[in-house]
Amino acid sequence: MILVKGYAAQNAKSPLAPFNFQRREPGPTDVQIDILYCGVCHSDLHQIRDEWGGSIFPMVPGHEIVGKVSKVGSEVKNFKIGDMVGVGCLVDSCRSCSNCKADLEQFCEVHSVATYNSLEMDRKTPTYGGYSNQIVVDEKFTLKVSDKLKLEGVAPLLCAGITTYSPLRHWKVGKGHKVAVVGLGGLGHMAVKFAASFGAEVTVLSTTASKEKDAKKLGAHHFVVTKDEGQIKKVKESFDFILNTISAQHDYNFFLNLLRVNGTMVLVGVPPEAVPVRAFSLIGGRRSLAGSLIGGLKETQEMLDYCATHNITSEIEIIPIKEIENAYVRMVKGDVRYRFVIDMATL
Amino acid sequence: MILVKGYAAQNAKSPLAPFNFQRREPGPTDVQIDILYCGVCHSDLHQIRDEWGGSIFPMVPGHEIVGKVSKVGSEVKNFKIGDMVGVGCLVDSCRSCSNCKADLEQFCEVHSVATYNSLEMDRKTPTYGGYSNQIVVDEKFTLKVSDKLKLEGVAPLLCAGITTYSPLRHWKVGKGHKVAVVGLGGLGHMAVKFAASFGAEVTVLSTTASKEKDAKKLGAHHFVVTKDEGQIKKVKESFDFILNTISAQHDYNFFLNLLRVNGTMVLVGVPPEAVPVRAFSLIGGRRSLAGSLIGGLKETQEMLDYCATHNITSEIEIIPIKEIENAYVRMVKGDVRYRFVIDMATL
Repeated sequence: MILVKGYAAQNAKSPLAPFNFQRREPGPTDVQIDILYCGVCHSDLHQIRDEWGGSIFPMVPGHEIVGKVSKVGSEVKNFKIGDMVGVGCLVDSCRSCSNCKADLEQFCEVHSVATYNSLEMDRKTPTYGGYSNQIVVDEKFTLKVSDKLKLEGVAPLLCAGITTYSPLRHWKVGKGHKVAVVGLGGLGHMAVKFAASFGAEVTVLSTTASKEKDAKKLGAHHFVVTKDEGQIKKVKESFDFILNTISAQHDYNFFLNLLRVNGTMVLVGVPPEAVPVRAFSLIGGRRSLAGSLIGGLKETQEMLDYCATHNITSEIEIIPIKEIENAYVRMVKGDVRYRFVIDMATL
Repeated sequence: MILVKGYAAQNAKSPLAPFNFQRREPGPTDVQIDILYCGVCHSDLHQIRDEWGGSIFPMVPGHEIVGKVSKVGSEVKNFKIGDMVGVGCLVDSCRSCSNCKADLEQFCEVHSVATYNSLEMDRKTPTYGGYSNQIVVDEKFTLKVSDKLKLEGVAPLLCAGITTYSPLRHWKVGKGHKVAVVGLGGLGHMAVKFAASFGAEVTVLSTTASKEKDAKKLGAHHFVVTKDEGQIKKVKESFDFILNTISAQHDYNFFLNLLRVNGTMVLVGVPPEAVPVRAFSLIGGRRSLAGSLIGGLKETQEMLDYCATHNITSEIEIIPIKEIENAYVRMVKGDVRYRFVIDMATL
């Protein structure tokens, strides 16, 4: 076993604190990684507070990991010591069910192993995430990261990036499409960058008028304040596609009615309660309400490669790890543009 | 004006009763039709009871109309006296907006003129439906009906038929797909016939075990009683497509969880209240919840032609018009296999 330093929550009420633990020695197909940066995802907080239930403690959060390969197993083919790599939300799956074979490991029919707060395929060994100085991951679940991009801005691509890239690709969003992004946070700001990069005409829908300048800097063509009835009236039945990143409770029907005929709204946020949907919000325009969950490994690599080619990274604020609890407080208030990233050298 | 005999509701509480009224003389592009049969749609009852609000009285319901052309306007090109024709839910639209140009007149951006309980494009003249002996309709909204099929079984195709045909076609349901039909009524029984005819493997999901034999006679390959947990467990995450025809209040999440990854459930019924949807029911399998509304004129003609080629009609029970109130009582109880059709000779 190898000794690892990290930060963990000991239970749903304790703050994150230093925690030493062990990881497996790299096996034949494993890559050992010195973690350089780890993004701070809102789901980290949900899980350490056990807001979704079933949390496994002690918990080392973090699934937006970038680092440098420090050791490789004897059968590893695609990585060598010194390579820059990433690890996202998944570190294993059955690899043989129809979804795994279709490169949709996030929907593995047997068991998707999440990077933290999960159990390995043996269903016994807990997984620990990226708020730590080292991680050991099978090469199949390790991603190549270009050294052309600023590494700290790459970290959030592993979750916020793929979560927004995947639905835009799956629903073939591009030139000639009017796309709205609801919510301009960690996910939303990546959605704007990708949708604009794919050639769509992008509108940010936000409750906060003061975000307009930023939205446009990120690539949005238009900005609509959702509380302004006059502005909303002008965009009624106008969008081909809405990417809804809000995880607070809100009314889906309000946004569905902004879709034109055949339009689709995709949810990537999970509000705490079920949201009442009026059948006519869908029937009245052959509209779809859909959901999307991160992305498979193949698509995550494709996204990272796309970002390297098109010089796309996340907008971030670097923090030392001892600032993590304060970062959570600010994240909940929306006081971050747009993602906190922990500099793991501060461990 | 021409004098027409029909049955009308005078207000939301009065039973249907004989009613004489006038229709326009056929204009240059109009077709005058002697109505032979008219199907009884559940929406007839919703509207005469003003359950959706905004009903226009007196109301002559009926939008599943078949009959024989008795007169044509001077510029009519596609119909002649004696032709068998159909009229569905629409009798006019703006014909120039982007949806009308895309053959989606049901989503006309200006005004879709419904066959009854609606106003003509002048926004003044009320429309009266098919519970009557004659109707005058622009030829653009008149459909050709094959004389190969039993006319009384064709009538329900004009609403129940196109409402189920259109989403199955739009979502490209066919060979290799596992399709579930929820609810085996007027809409559901047509959905089973079409989905089976398109080559899909069809399962009927129903609360009523006694419908199994009928479901299989209609073409279903499997039958699942939704109250039987054991049966439901076996079909979890198994369907590519669910056509949900239920208009009673029910839980969408229950059915969404029967969809495999990338599956779609399409609503064609409108429950009285909004239905709470859990984001994870969608996100957990990149699933879609969609809605579909009848079909445009071009597709309705395509459906009628398909039915003539493949010998598909609705299963019906013929009634004289004076039995209409009793038919409504039985329809609400689900005591009809599967559609009442009024023989207009009984007027």
